[in-house]
Amino acid sequence: MLEDKKKFMLEAIKLSIDNVKSGKGGPFGAVVVKDGKIIATGVNGVTTSNDPTAHAEVVAIRNACKALNSFQLTGCEIYTSCEPCPMCLGAIYWARPDKWYYGNSKTDAAAINFDDSFIYDELVIPHDERKIPAIQLMQEEAQEAFKLWAKSEIKIEY
Amino acid sequence: MLEDKKKFMLEAIKLSIDNVKSGKGGPFGAVVVKDGKIIATGVNGVTTSNDPTAHAEVVAIRNACKALNSFQLTGCEIYTSCEPCPMCLGAIYWARPDKWYYGNSKTDAAAINFDDSFIYDELVIPHDERKIPAIQLMQEEAQEAFKLWAKSEIKIEY
Repeated sequence: MLEDKKKFMLEAIKLSIDNVKSGKGGPFGAVVVKDGKIIATGVNGVTTSNDPTAHAEVVAIRNACKALNSFQLTGCEIYTSCEPCPMCLGAIYWARPDKWYYGNSKTDAAAINFDDSFIYDELVIPHDERKIPAIQLMQEEAQEAFKLWAKSEIKIEY
Repeated sequence: MLEDKKKFMLEAIKLSIDNVKSGKGGPFGAVVVKDGKIIATGVNGVTTSNDPTAHAEVVAIRNACKALNSFQLTGCEIYTSCEPCPMCLGAIYWARPDKWYYGNSKTDAAAINFDDSFIYDELVIPHDERKIPAIQLMQEEAQEAFKLWAKSEIKIEY
């Protein structure tokens, strides 16, 4: 129901507002919902926890997985106050919830000087044109782990 | 020096191999280097820590930031046994190291059934064509946190 969805989004927005007021971190909040209930929340804590990966969505996903004792969010929905950056969108794909909702867009985020749009652009241009240079090294040696994985009988796929 | 770079990459590769052999997680390892020394390492621990964000690069970045007591990896280089997925590449951009090196490519990862390439593809297609649906909701209300952030005098930018 739309009313429920709005209620969950409002909670994510509330978290984002409180996070700015308290000075804890960036203006971002997220909640994870399963079976019509919020099972986990997250706010941006990059600067206070010295963790550049502590974005609201990543924190909420980690907390939800802890709550479910699982590395997958099957049957869950994520409500985030802002469209996820590539890191958080990647995290959503790895967690595999059913659906996600967002309030502000990445363009809105760019307007208050967050790098989201810039990173989206960087992801799709050739390595040698990127702002942070990337160099391939020792691919042949690196293959060893992949070969072992392919034939491993104790691996847990994800 | 190329010899040093190879030494650091070899360490990341070694971590990736050990991670498969021990059954701890996927075939991925990473190290963070500053001033010619490894200051942090990371391996994939998705299935054993029930954390879909526990990729080698994310873990190594978190550990390096903890070691430096900073949310930025200025002056650092990251060596990862495989080209980062979008989540990890996003994390690298937020951590802002000087450079990064990789062994296996994302195509190599796709060949042993990891979703990296699939997620790269999803990132650049319209929301309504994506495998995990995304819906925008309450953008106007969500703006409130951004407005507060813009005029906040206690914020720490990152």
